[in-house]
Amino acid sequence: MSLTIEVCLTPKLINQHTLEGKIAVVADIFRATSCIVTALSENATAIYPVSTMDECLKLGTQGMLTAGERGGIKIKEFNLGNSPFEYMGKVSGKEVAISTTNGTIALEKSKNAEQVIIGSFLNITATINYLIDQKLPVIIHCAGWKGAPNIEDTLYAGALVHQLIGHDYLAKSDSAKMALDLYRRNKNSLLKIALESDHAKRLKKFGITKDLDFCLQVDKYPNLNGRLMGSKIIKI
Amino acid sequence: MSLTIEVCLTPKLINQHTLEGKIAVVADIFRATSCIVTALSENATAIYPVSTMDECLKLGTQGMLTAGERGGIKIKEFNLGNSPFEYMGKVSGKEVAISTTNGTIALEKSKNAEQVIIGSFLNITATINYLIDQKLPVIIHCAGWKGAPNIEDTLYAGALVHQLIGHDYLAKSDSAKMALDLYRRNKNSLLKIALESDHAKRLKKFGITKDLDFCLQVDKYPNLNGRLMGSKIIKI
Repeated sequence: MSLTIEVCLTPKLINQHTLEGKIAVVADIFRATSCIVTALSENATAIYPVSTMDECLKLGTQGMLTAGERGGIKIKEFNLGNSPFEYMGKVSGKEVAISTTNGTIALEKSKNAEQVIIGSFLNITATINYLIDQKLPVIIHCAGWKGAPNIEDTLYAGALVHQLIGHDYLAKSDSAKMALDLYRRNKNSLLKIALESDHAKRLKKFGITKDLDFCLQVDKYPNLNGRLMGSKIIKI
Repeated sequence: MSLTIEVCLTPKLINQHTLEGKIAVVADIFRATSCIVTALSENATAIYPVSTMDECLKLGTQGMLTAGERGGIKIKEFNLGNSPFEYMGKVSGKEVAISTTNGTIALEKSKNAEQVIIGSFLNITATINYLIDQKLPVIIHCAGWKGAPNIEDTLYAGALVHQLIGHDYLAKSDSAKMALDLYRRNKNSLLKIALESDHAKRLKKFGITKDLDFCLQVDKYPNLNGRLMGSKIIKI
C-alpha cells in the first residue's frame, strides 16, 4: 500500500488534517524556512521558533541572537531580519531565536505530527531522501500569508508531491493534486510564477528581490535537513 | 482603476476576505449550484437553501419539494437528490427546499456580500455578462468539500478569473492566481482534471458519472442567472 502525501495550503486549514503518525514538512519559502535552513548550513547550533517578539527578545537576553520580521519588515530591536543573507557569517556556533509572521505559526500548529521537518527549495532533495527513508505518510504544511494560501509555498508543496509520487507515494486530497499541477505547469520557470505572488510584490516594494532568487535555488544545500525537536530546530 | 476578483477556496477561509460591497459568486460544481441553475432553467419558482435536513423537511410539509444530499448520497425522505437530472420535468412552477453538504454552507456564509449569485459552468457566460454589468468587485466563493479546497470549484473559479481579467479586472490574492493557472493548464480538458478530484471519485463509486459530464458543460443555459434574495434563490 502506497504512503500518502497531503498538502495543507494554510495553517487555517490544518484542522482538516490529522497529523498523528505523519511527518509534517513546514514550508515558508519567502522566507522563514529558507532562512532556517541557511542558518543551519552556517552552523547555527539551534533555531528556536517563537510566536511573539517579546519571547524572542527574552531569549536574546539569555544570549541568543534574535531574528525575524513582521509583515515582511525587520524588527529594529532584533539582531537579524528575515533575509537568508543576514545569516551568512554571523551565526556559527550560536543559538538563534526567530519570530516571523507566518512560519512560526505553521511550526507551532504542526507539533502533533510524529516528526516536523523544515522545507525549502534550498534542500529539497535532502528532504525527499529523508522522507523516503522514514517510510511515514507525509503532510506538507504551507505557512501561507496571514492565513491565506500563497503561490510560493504551494509551488514547493507541488515540487515535493511531484518527486514523492515518483517513489510510489499517493497524492491524497485535491489540494495535493492542485499543488502538483501548479508545480508541473511552472517547473521550468519557478521564478516567473513566484514573482507574480503577492508576497514577492511586497518584498520587491521593500527592495528585497535578491532574497527571492536566493530562496528559489534548488539544492544549494544538498545534504542538509532541519528538524524540530521539542522547542528547537537542529540539523539532522 | 480595475475592479478586483478574489477567490476563496473554501468556506473555512471566508473570514480572510471582506464581502461587503462585493458580488459573491458561490460555486459548488459537483453538484449543488449546477442543480440550482438547472432547477431555475426548468422554471422552478424559487430555491430555498437550508442548512439542516429538518428545516428542509419542514418546508416540505408547507408544500415545497425537498432536495439534497449528505456525503454525496440522496436523503431518503426527500423528493429529489442532488443530481441535475432529477430536476428535469419535475420542478416547473414549484418551490424547492435544498440542503447539501457544502453548497448551502457557502451560500449561508456569503450573505454579507452586496449580491450573492449562483455559479456553474452551465451558465458561466451569463454570469460573466452579469458581473461586468454590475461593476462591482467580485469574490468567488468555492464550496469545497467539508472545509477543504477541491479541484472542480477551483477550476470554475479559474475560468471566471480568466474571463474577467480579459475585461480589465485584476486577480487579487494568490488564490485567484493559482485558480487561474489551474484553469489555463486544463481548459481544453476540464473533464480529465475534474475526474482526478476526490469528489469525482466518490461520485463514481456511487455510479453517478453522467452527472460529472453534465455539470462540466459550458453554457448549456447561456442566458440564465440565479441570485439569492433574502432566503430564496430566483432567476434574474
